[in-house]
Amino acid sequence: MGFLVIKMDKKCILIIAAHPDDEIIGVGGTIVKHVKNGDEVYLSIVTDGVFAKYFGQDKFQRLKERKMDCLKVAKYLGIKKVFFHSLPDAKLDTLPQIELNRLIENEIKKIKPNIVYTHHWNDLHRDHRLVFEATMVATRKNVQEVFCYEGLGLSNINGGVQQFVPNTYIDISKELKKKLKAMSYYKSMLKQFPNPISVEALEVLAKVRGIQSGLMAAEAFVCIKRIIK
Amino acid sequence: MGFLVIKMDKKCILIIAAHPDDEIIGVGGTIVKHVKNGDEVYLSIVTDGVFAKYFGQDKFQRLKERKMDCLKVAKYLGIKKVFFHSLPDAKLDTLPQIELNRLIENEIKKIKPNIVYTHHWNDLHRDHRLVFEATMVATRKNVQEVFCYEGLGLSNINGGVQQFVPNTYIDISKELKKKLKAMSYYKSMLKQFPNPISVEALEVLAKVRGIQSGLMAAEAFVCIKRIIK
Amino acid sequence: MGFLVIKMDKKCILIIAAHPDDEIIGVGGTIVKHVKNGDEVYLSIVTDGVFAKYFGQDKFQRLKERKMDCLKVAKYLGIKKVFFHSLPDAKLDTLPQIELNRLIENEIKKIKPNIVYTHHWNDLHRDHRLVFEATMVATRKNVQEVFCYEGLGLSNINGGVQQFVPNTYIDISKELKKKLKAMSYYKSMLKQFPNPISVEALEVLAKVRGIQSGLMAAEAFVCIKRIIK
Amino acid sequence: MGFLVIKMDKKCILIIAAHPDDEIIGVGGTIVKHVKNGDEVYLSIVTDGVFAKYFGQDKFQRLKERKMDCLKVAKYLGIKKVFFHSLPDAKLDTLPQIELNRLIENEIKKIKPNIVYTHHWNDLHRDHRLVFEATMVATRKNVQEVFCYEGLGLSNINGGVQQFVPNTYIDISKELKKKLKAMSYYKSMLKQFPNPISVEALEVLAKVRGIQSGLMAAEAFVCIKRIIK
Amino acid sequence: MGFLVIKMDKKCILIIAAHPDDEIIGVGGTIVKHVKNGDEVYLSIVTDGVFAKYFGQDKFQRLKERKMDCLKVAKYLGIKKVFFHSLPDAKLDTLPQIELNRLIENEIKKIKPNIVYTHHWNDLHRDHRLVFEATMVATRKNVQEVFCYEGLGLSNINGGVQQFVPNTYIDISKELKKKLKAMSYYKSMLKQFPNPISVEALEVLAKVRGIQSGLMAAEAFVCIKRIIK
Amino acid sequence: MGFLVIKMDKKCILIIAAHPDDEIIGVGGTIVKHVKNGDEVYLSIVTDGVFAKYFGQDKFQRLKERKMDCLKVAKYLGIKKVFFHSLPDAKLDTLPQIELNRLIENEIKKIKPNIVYTHHWNDLHRDHRLVFEATMVATRKNVQEVFCYEGLGLSNINGGVQQFVPNTYIDISKELKKKLKAMSYYKSMLKQFPNPISVEALEVLAKVRGIQSGLMAAEAFVCIKRIIK
Repeated sequence: MGFLVIKMDKKCILIIAAHPDDEIIGVGGTIVKHVKNGDEVYLSIVTDGVFAKYFGQDKFQRLKERKMDCLKVAKYLGIKKVFFHSLPDAKLDTLPQIELNRLIENEIKKIKPNIVYTHHWNDLHRDHRLVFEATMVATRKNVQEVFCYEGLGLSNINGGVQQFVPNTYIDISKELKKKLKAMSYYKSMLKQFPNPISVEALEVLAKVRGIQSGLMAAEAFVCIKRIIK
Repeated sequence: MGFLVIKMDKKCILIIAAHPDDEIIGVGGTIVKHVKNGDEVYLSIVTDGVFAKYFGQDKFQRLKERKMDCLKVAKYLGIKKVFFHSLPDAKLDTLPQIELNRLIENEIKKIKPNIVYTHHWNDLHRDHRLVFEATMVATRKNVQEVFCYEGLGLSNINGGVQQFVPNTYIDISKELKKKLKAMSYYKSMLKQFPNPISVEALEVLAKVRGIQSGLMAAEAFVCIKRIIK
Repeated sequence: MGFLVIKMDKKCILIIAAHPDDEIIGVGGTIVKHVKNGDEVYLSIVTDGVFAKYFGQDKFQRLKERKMDCLKVAKYLGIKKVFFHSLPDAKLDTLPQIELNRLIENEIKKIKPNIVYTHHWNDLHRDHRLVFEATMVATRKNVQEVFCYEGLGLSNINGGVQQFVPNTYIDISKELKKKLKAMSYYKSMLKQFPNPISVEALEVLAKVRGIQSGLMAAEAFVCIKRIIK
Repeated sequence: MGFLVIKMDKKCILIIAAHPDDEIIGVGGTIVKHVKNGDEVYLSIVTDGVFAKYFGQDKFQRLKERKMDCLKVAKYLGIKKVFFHSLPDAKLDTLPQIELNRLIENEIKKIKPNIVYTHHWNDLHRDHRLVFEATMVATRKNVQEVFCYEGLGLSNINGGVQQFVPNTYIDISKELKKKLKAMSYYKSMLKQFPNPISVEALEVLAKVRGIQSGLMAAEAFVCIKRIIK
Repeated sequence: MGFLVIKMDKKCILIIAAHPDDEIIGVGGTIVKHVKNGDEVYLSIVTDGVFAKYFGQDKFQRLKERKMDCLKVAKYLGIKKVFFHSLPDAKLDTLPQIELNRLIENEIKKIKPNIVYTHHWNDLHRDHRLVFEATMVATRKNVQEVFCYEGLGLSNINGGVQQFVPNTYIDISKELKKKLKAMSYYKSMLKQFPNPISVEALEVLAKVRGIQSGLMAAEAFVCIKRIIK
Repeated sequence: MGFLVIKMDKKCILIIAAHPDDEIIGVGGTIVKHVKNGDEVYLSIVTDGVFAKYFGQDKFQRLKERKMDCLKVAKYLGIKKVFFHSLPDAKLDTLPQIELNRLIENEIKKIKPNIVYTHHWNDLHRDHRLVFEATMVATRKNVQEVFCYEGLGLSNINGGVQQFVPNTYIDISKELKKKLKAMSYYKSMLKQFPNPISVEALEVLAKVRGIQSGLMAAEAFVCIKRIIK
């Protein structure tokens, strides 16, 4: 059984994010932890993350900046490689879903991850839900552990509808500081508290997830599937 | 429609709590807000809150202390009157449910509240769930607004099962300080963070609920029923 | 806290409906109530409501008629202004969702409503679900109260799947008559009972919602979000 | 397959009700229909239905009256036999659940019903939920069709919690009149509309369930289990 | 009431499947049973079932083969007629949903089925969900019984999300053998156990559904709607 | 992060079962796996498992036999120690829930397990649900991994209500044979297939769970909580 035997080998981790900064919000502390443990962490950014909000010449500049920010974050956290797929931001629903499915299937064939982290199915952002669906299709055969990470903003305000109910907590007491620092690299995205896209917001959420799990700080996940051989 | 016309009259508020300190955790800031608005706030404490954990002579001493703490909190917050029913702590399931239903029905007949705040149905603590059920029965005819408040501790760790999904947020930006102070009066109950029964835990939860509602600090509720005449 | 202080100011109300007549079915009595209270009520009709069923030259005639009916209803109820967006009826899924999101975001920026009424997420009609989703995105920051209204027809026959579970009831005992009269203006839409698009159907539903809330007649809603400052 | 072959044999029907009048509210029209079809209908009344509300000498008088009313209704509808078990009204939770399970198991062994109608699991009334649970246990092996019927009152006001979502509708267009007449026999129970325990309430509910199923009047059920041999 | 009176007339059955072989997996034994009972069974295959996986000249060959397999299965089982609609496989989301709705509406107008079997709403395969939605729209007025059948593969691995919870079991003890034989006709689709698309997988699933219903072998369904006149 | 570092230390496992044989049905193969890995496995049997069905002198004989069977199974599987608590079978609801909570809390204090396996919350058997609840209370602070195992019989026939939706699969391809052999030791409990308490039933369920996870045979679990330090 996986969690019982001696493990000397490194794990291979794939994080799938619709937009740059989703990865740091949902799984930033856990990335640091994986890297500490010698695991190889790959990040797949599905959309350009920019073109829905920026227009004219400006948008190419913004695209370049956001990629640079993301690469800086990736380097700081120790991510091995970032794949930018540059599908249209906030418009994943304009593609046949099968294209998104295949993009992620190919990523998984290439990287052969032991663990995949993806968006949660109940996120208000359509892109996030479609990435979740594609991940479910793409991981149904060859991946042994799949987790949904938390989106601080939209996934928590979809009131009335079923929400993010975590079943897994990862201790990031020692990684929180680095997570918050990394977040600050997305300077152009950052807002003032109580906006969810703020450093303080990440910090208090980590503490609340800690309270629920008896830890000083935690990231919370929904484990969708775990196969123990 | 209730929320549209001029209202000069005071509201009458009933808060139902299984144990002393549940009221401050779930609805402390909102109590302050109601009092500021000139509403009359009543607090009904269903169990003794002590006898499940304390034995021998000691337990009567503890009972006295906890009541005193509660009265101090009530006074500090401006609660008009506290009703102690002293049913057996952590043993509400040993009573016929009809007795609990009637106790709360009688309270409601006496107080005639406009708004009732009670526990949430999915709390891990059996006492809390039974108080919820009794409130539902007791308020089904004569009360126009019923809210479930949040329990910081147990209600949030009942993983896997449907959780607390708020549909109402009350701004307590200006009341948070008083809420935290009041919590500190339950000295013998307080633990160290990240224990949920700690002042810091209340503070970070208020901030997370604020993030979700665009406020500096908030208390979150599930509105079960609201009848607008 | 909103519901506690004296309110002299008028509320601004926005009702979002996929098709003309959804507004009267779901929220007709409540519109009358708002108008009585001096509130400003705006109605946003998202689709043309016609082109999915009518073809050839006929369809422009029908479009004109249905708009006329809607304006007559609006005038009779006291609605201040109707916005016709004329997106393709029964084909909202052929648009990028972001266009629908922006259409409603712009409406909200312009009107600045205090309360928004929209479709319910579990309606069988795809247009209705997409309007719900767009409303959720568009109201996530600036609107304090969002309600889903009931669709008498399709939303109630989506058996097996989670249904419309109201948490808010608005007394329309005195407004029911006017609601039914208004419905009769949509002459070309009306069918015979037990068809849900009939005056008698609206009447019995209002009574059942009344039974559940202790009123002679009511409209039922799911409150998605209410922020009380 | 049951619904495909020629059926000359009569069906045997068991209706389980916590209190006299639950059967008429939930399944009155359907009883008439079964009787018309030559089926044998048995009614099992689990509690005395009286002692929770009446005290002193009076209560025995009331018990006698309510039984008499129930027998009158049963005779009028054509029910073959009523079994009064007289367990304590509104206090089924004071019995070990196994006693209730066995009572219903024995009933089922004796009557050998083809179809069982029982309460719904999400009813606010504890007695109703416990009868549902006992029915589930008792029917798990030997009964082929189990339906939950609707409770007009409490089961519909348990707002916020999962509700009665029917998947079966039985046409009672021709039986409604007899159902309403039968209800009127429970004279002492009847209240004024909009109280759910009123003849008009039963009538409008039947019409709403009709609207949903394209019928002039219907009773709605949740089919829990149907085994087709 | 349908299940009570003598029935000499044949039933008309429509099975809707996104891809050839879905029908045998979900409803193969039940088809045999219907045919035995003299019912007329029609099969509607929505997509080509091939073009998402095969390319070049090869794909037309595959399409031809798969149709031939399907017709062979249909003949073997006694299905009266198969309708191939050849919409694009794995790309139903690229069509306006209204086209799919109308395709199935027309099928239903033509065939006038008493019972419809369709996919389940929570299947991971997008085509399956869209076919479910279209069936719900198309059957909302004129069909009395609608069932969702089970997909052995994807519908069961959508972990974390609400799953297939059957309320109807059909005894296929005597039909299982023929079902398995029919499955073997889809030679090119078949995989080795434990792949869900294998003869042994169908066999063990039939046994597990049998265990749950006290039968040697069964097919399980979710009854969405049943109207009993 | 727990699952990443080298682990030389043995795990300590606690399995909580209401009745002897629940452990083998739900977690038999996984026990074998843990023992192979050198983990210490403890089994806690909450009720006597006999007195609800056997009476007179006979019942003490049966109690003795069932304990003997359980010890034989435990020895065969390599379980280190079995704790028999002998609470009243099928009557756990007659105890104050706090007693059950404390019994399990004490067990956990004594054994200090890393992983706890318990019943599922949606099991039809009341004893099972109460053991689940007590486990949730007892493990809320000090246990890092809690899983619900599957009950073949009752937990799967509670149609209409939310069911067992696994998120964790443990490969028992090599342990299945030993699991089935162990089951056969409960000779007096065994029934004929398709009764769920039969060796063949366990075998086909293991295969279906295998199909879902790409394994030859598996046991399925709901991970309630997993804290990764």
